[in-house]
Amino acid sequence: MSFNSFGHLFRVTTWGESHGPALGATVDGCPPGVPLTPEDIQVWLDRRKPGQSKYTTQRREADEVEILSGVFEGETTGTPIQLMIRNTDQRSKDYSEIAEKFRPGHADITYWQKYGIRDYRGGGRSSARETAARVAAGGVARAALAQLAPGMSITGYMVQMGDHHIDRARFDWDQIDQNPFWVPDAQAAEDWATYLDGLRKSGESVGAAIEMTVRGAPAGLGAPIYAKLDTDLAAAMMSINAVKGTEIGDGMAAAALTGSANADEITMGPDGPVYSSNHAGGILGGISTGQDIVVRFAVKPTSSILTPRATITKSGEETTIVTKGRHDPCVGIRAVPVGEAMAACVMLDHVLLHRGQIGQNRGRIG
Amino acid sequence: MSFNSFGHLFRVTTWGESHGPALGATVDGCPPGVPLTPEDIQVWLDRRKPGQSKYTTQRREADEVEILSGVFEGETTGTPIQLMIRNTDQRSKDYSEIAEKFRPGHADITYWQKYGIRDYRGGGRSSARETAARVAAGGVARAALAQLAPGMSITGYMVQMGDHHIDRARFDWDQIDQNPFWVPDAQAAEDWATYLDGLRKSGESVGAAIEMTVRGAPAGLGAPIYAKLDTDLAAAMMSINAVKGTEIGDGMAAAALTGSANADEITMGPDGPVYSSNHAGGILGGISTGQDIVVRFAVKPTSSILTPRATITKSGEETTIVTKGRHDPCVGIRAVPVGEAMAACVMLDHVLLHRGQIGQNRGRIG
Amino acid sequence: MSFNSFGHLFRVTTWGESHGPALGATVDGCPPGVPLTPEDIQVWLDRRKPGQSKYTTQRREADEVEILSGVFEGETTGTPIQLMIRNTDQRSKDYSEIAEKFRPGHADITYWQKYGIRDYRGGGRSSARETAARVAAGGVARAALAQLAPGMSITGYMVQMGDHHIDRARFDWDQIDQNPFWVPDAQAAEDWATYLDGLRKSGESVGAAIEMTVRGAPAGLGAPIYAKLDTDLAAAMMSINAVKGTEIGDGMAAAALTGSANADEITMGPDGPVYSSNHAGGILGGISTGQDIVVRFAVKPTSSILTPRATITKSGEETTIVTKGRHDPCVGIRAVPVGEAMAACVMLDHVLLHRGQIGQNRGRIG
Amino acid sequence: MSFNSFGHLFRVTTWGESHGPALGATVDGCPPGVPLTPEDIQVWLDRRKPGQSKYTTQRREADEVEILSGVFEGETTGTPIQLMIRNTDQRSKDYSEIAEKFRPGHADITYWQKYGIRDYRGGGRSSARETAARVAAGGVARAALAQLAPGMSITGYMVQMGDHHIDRARFDWDQIDQNPFWVPDAQAAEDWATYLDGLRKSGESVGAAIEMTVRGAPAGLGAPIYAKLDTDLAAAMMSINAVKGTEIGDGMAAAALTGSANADEITMGPDGPVYSSNHAGGILGGISTGQDIVVRFAVKPTSSILTPRATITKSGEETTIVTKGRHDPCVGIRAVPVGEAMAACVMLDHVLLHRGQIGQNRGRIG
Repeated sequence: MSFNSFGHLFRVTTWGESHGPALGATVDGCPPGVPLTPEDIQVWLDRRKPGQSKYTTQRREADEVEILSGVFEGETTGTPIQLMIRNTDQRSKDYSEIAEKFRPGHADITYWQKYGIRDYRGGGRSSARETAARVAAGGVARAALAQLAPGMSITGYMVQMGDHHIDRARFDWDQIDQNPFWVPDAQAAEDWATYLDGLRKSGESVGAAIEMTVRGAPAGLGAPIYAKLDTDLAAAMMSINAVKGTEIGDGMAAAALTGSANADEITMGPDGPVYSSNHAGGILGGISTGQDIVVRFAVKPTSSILTPRATITKSGEETTIVTKGRHDPCVGIRAVPVGEAMAACVMLDHVLLHRGQIGQNRGRIG
Repeated sequence: MSFNSFGHLFRVTTWGESHGPALGATVDGCPPGVPLTPEDIQVWLDRRKPGQSKYTTQRREADEVEILSGVFEGETTGTPIQLMIRNTDQRSKDYSEIAEKFRPGHADITYWQKYGIRDYRGGGRSSARETAARVAAGGVARAALAQLAPGMSITGYMVQMGDHHIDRARFDWDQIDQNPFWVPDAQAAEDWATYLDGLRKSGESVGAAIEMTVRGAPAGLGAPIYAKLDTDLAAAMMSINAVKGTEIGDGMAAAALTGSANADEITMGPDGPVYSSNHAGGILGGISTGQDIVVRFAVKPTSSILTPRATITKSGEETTIVTKGRHDPCVGIRAVPVGEAMAACVMLDHVLLHRGQIGQNRGRIG
Repeated sequence: MSFNSFGHLFRVTTWGESHGPALGATVDGCPPGVPLTPEDIQVWLDRRKPGQSKYTTQRREADEVEILSGVFEGETTGTPIQLMIRNTDQRSKDYSEIAEKFRPGHADITYWQKYGIRDYRGGGRSSARETAARVAAGGVARAALAQLAPGMSITGYMVQMGDHHIDRARFDWDQIDQNPFWVPDAQAAEDWATYLDGLRKSGESVGAAIEMTVRGAPAGLGAPIYAKLDTDLAAAMMSINAVKGTEIGDGMAAAALTGSANADEITMGPDGPVYSSNHAGGILGGISTGQDIVVRFAVKPTSSILTPRATITKSGEETTIVTKGRHDPCVGIRAVPVGEAMAACVMLDHVLLHRGQIGQNRGRIG
Repeated sequence: MSFNSFGHLFRVTTWGESHGPALGATVDGCPPGVPLTPEDIQVWLDRRKPGQSKYTTQRREADEVEILSGVFEGETTGTPIQLMIRNTDQRSKDYSEIAEKFRPGHADITYWQKYGIRDYRGGGRSSARETAARVAAGGVARAALAQLAPGMSITGYMVQMGDHHIDRARFDWDQIDQNPFWVPDAQAAEDWATYLDGLRKSGESVGAAIEMTVRGAPAGLGAPIYAKLDTDLAAAMMSINAVKGTEIGDGMAAAALTGSANADEITMGPDGPVYSSNHAGGILGGISTGQDIVVRFAVKPTSSILTPRATITKSGEETTIVTKGRHDPCVGIRAVPVGEAMAACVMLDHVLLHRGQIGQNRGRIG
């Protein structure tokens, strides 16, 4: 309902700017009794942390999470969990050159127009640093899901960088953690390294597409109208900085399908319905089918680049801009753990909502 | 926040099934003093109404809207507006054959699993008829926008049907109302008619992509994190039946762009910033730029087709299904006014939210 | 969260004016599978219906409820339940005299100042008729509670009318339905009849206090901060027209107690904790104890009276007013079923919220 | 909507326990451009701070607020304001005796039953320390109100302690800050000091009633049904620890009034309507009249007392308890700034809501 909160029963409010003393997430509605330590959260933050490879910003943030409330003797209490991450590397001088100019393709200008505030040091709330708070909240969601839906796993990976796509025939879950791009295709990982090196050296940036698969989600999560599971997943992804599109299952490609091609045929397996395919991405009519849930989103390239671009200043004068700060040539890389975290929050929220309204699935098959 | 409501300050709750006595929308938060008659709403409903061409379902619904509350002497009162549409053509017998079987690609099965209710007569809340209520609510939003943001217009149109795309070089706003597909390309309209005729006769269905352009929206609407204007637009579109993907500006194609290509360069015009291009789709950092806002979504093909598909029954037996009811070969056609209506609701909501928190834009340029 | 909705998971939006075609309630979030017929709701509406004794307004409304959605084959489907009550007796002429004048103590004036709309026919949304919609929604809540918390009962009764109080020593549950005042004290019922007759004949009105007891509520419902069970009960009561105060347990009288007097001592019974007294009104720290939940509210007297009062007109001229319409000498009488209905909605909402976040109580005693 | 958030557009989420590292408030929806320093907030916290007189707990907390986000160069940015207060004096040993026993009249037992967590060190979220976060948030609300509604003031004061009431004939605004009880009656201040001294020495505690007056609020704030200004004020007060009753204007006493006595007669003054009295407490039909808004609430006595009380242990054994910690003999004293803070949050929220939906009042008088 409010501007910086997300979720129905499991509700996350992120706060903080990239150049203030700290940022974090206020997490409300977590069930009590979930084992939770800072390390459980840190492991996910470390995946998003900048400066881990030459392909991400060289800003060095420890991104160390502190749990200020809501956990007692190693377990959640059911009350708000405050997660705080201190900002430790805020070299404001890097931004001095752009204090008066707007970066084309960046929120600088709209933010200024709306709020009349220009936190030129790092974009204020439009900084990608805000996503660290999401990853921390996602860590809480994962811990709770481990209790409430123990078979569920959420895995994100890149499927496209610029005009390079993965080869689905080479898809290998085990590769995802083996390369700096979270790409499930060893060959792509190699090719993309070369490609991105070139872009980085020329001060360019590039977009990306990230896919997430939720395995082991039970059938029945979601609702048919505005609390559709896919609506909430799409909103969660679209709320991430720089995301311009989001898809469930076949996504935009569904526009090209015929009805007979799109129909995921159903047979009866030992444990319930079995589907011949998954065009639906695991969601029909806003409600999960029990198949893998497949969500995809596209991230635009960073607007902070070395190529000079025409722009204007706050006083309305025309000029050009080159952004020299420490930026990611492909922000899509670090968007992978962010997308996973948002998916985790949505899945937990729907597990709780379903339990609240329905209790457990009411319609049996067979 | 609840299962069937949408919006922050301008809040729409739709209700009703395709085979009950009526359906409608409860519209809360509309400003008072907006001139509103049933005719103002009916004009939009008539665009969505089935049976208008051979390309949409032959079900004949008058879709006549009644305003039961919230309007006094031709003006909104600021209190809830209840919009009711009676169901008049509910030939339940058409559905008898499918009462026990699940349609592949349809919400039949998940709906049953979750709720244990099978309204085989027409899908219950997963029926596309629910969208009539959205269109009615959108009519209220448009009436309010006419007062609060008089320069704003919202226009939807098809840009893809199956593997047929419009030719952007032939884009003509005036064509949109001239053909049964709401397509801004006269040539495409002709080609698509032939194409869809063929599909219809063979009992097939096909997907589509719809684009909406909001012209004349002021800069400053939206917020940087979860109440991003694009998040709310994406959620609004994804909440429509059968939608599988949604995009802002370049959308999923942004993944393929470089930073220099993506940057919409800025110069200074007589009335403020002027952009050289619109990759951003009129939204940067969740906040409108003042450019055209461009939203797109993909609709999957109807699952009700004549081609036999393998499926199971409620008792778990394997079988095949053919759906003989009166269905749309391309539901995307009738999704155009629905997308427009959802966009209108989101735009009004953000106009009110902006006025509530900010009053008016605070940052001047020039 | 919105202007006309109440509740978290079980969410009621009321709509409609006293002189429009109909009014009603949109009920979202009801669990599926709850047996529900119009008669289940009508029984509660009949208790609130005007014109049942000489002590309530002589306006004759059938107050017949229609279920327009959300129920299929006699059971709730888990989707929105639309409850509509047509207005049948709208003698607008009764109000003609007051079209330009504001009634002192009535919402006429503030409503006009805010909205600039004057539905002089019956107060628009500030009419007590709106409460019929609440009672209908309460009927749904009661039906759901009968399934989810079968031992729970909710009973309202008057404890004060003007300066007449019930005698707690004579409290008799069986008396409540035996008199027109819902008073649990046979002697009071007789005395009040005489008292109110006198007031009615002189064109006066009088305030009242209503108490509700929820018996059989389990321990554990509620939360410690803003979703306190008592906060939601208090808000529910205060949202009813003409209510000026609300209390839990000892209520305002708690200000006069010492700590030792206030402490409800605890011993161990065969089924868990047993309390020696119930100053707390069944709620400690926002969470139910398992004791009777006791809620009270005060209703001010109707402002529509025959005694001339000084007031002004819309054009700002000073004048006097006498209201001749068909009004209740003590609106508190008909507030009893309204309070019960609101309590039922709150209790169901908290049963669902508790199930959503917690599942079942986690802390054992003994 | 969530468990620990309050407000519609101006939305406060409090977090933290009395014995964790810190507690605070996440404040969302504040307008941008509001001058705000830690000192602006500290001044209110200092009023609530324990250990200021012998009449409040001797726990020594600096209660120093840090603004972690949402303020840049001395002005609010329109993004979330994180307010953190470190806990510095957490002598856990004081609580060791009660680790296994439940205090009668305290949330110990319900909290345990629901969550299965017993933060015996200080009550977890049911500690009165949580209210420090509310006071901090109220400081932000006051700063914003100073910009948006500059003539508005919010003043709280005690009107009853135990069976001692103030004498309204001696009411003096200037006295409120002159005594440790915030009482507007010099004679009462003296009498109460003697009275409370006696209670304190005998290890007893006592309840209190607090009244707040909002002066200078414009007419038109609020709405007629569930977002009534009085509903939100009542909910805000009832959400404070230990509050058992809440009243607007005449409150519970309205039950005893006749219609003619209750009617606040209206005449026309130079600046609009003038009322002869204020039984309504400044709110009619949920909407402010422009008169003083008068809200009252009762606080029960602290349950931590030296008088032995019968109780049970977690394992279900019967025992007695005496609470020796550092507690307030009359928590009502420190509830004064808390009530003020909640009122400030509600008033700002309604100023924003009104601006969002209506813009400015539409109905003129005269």
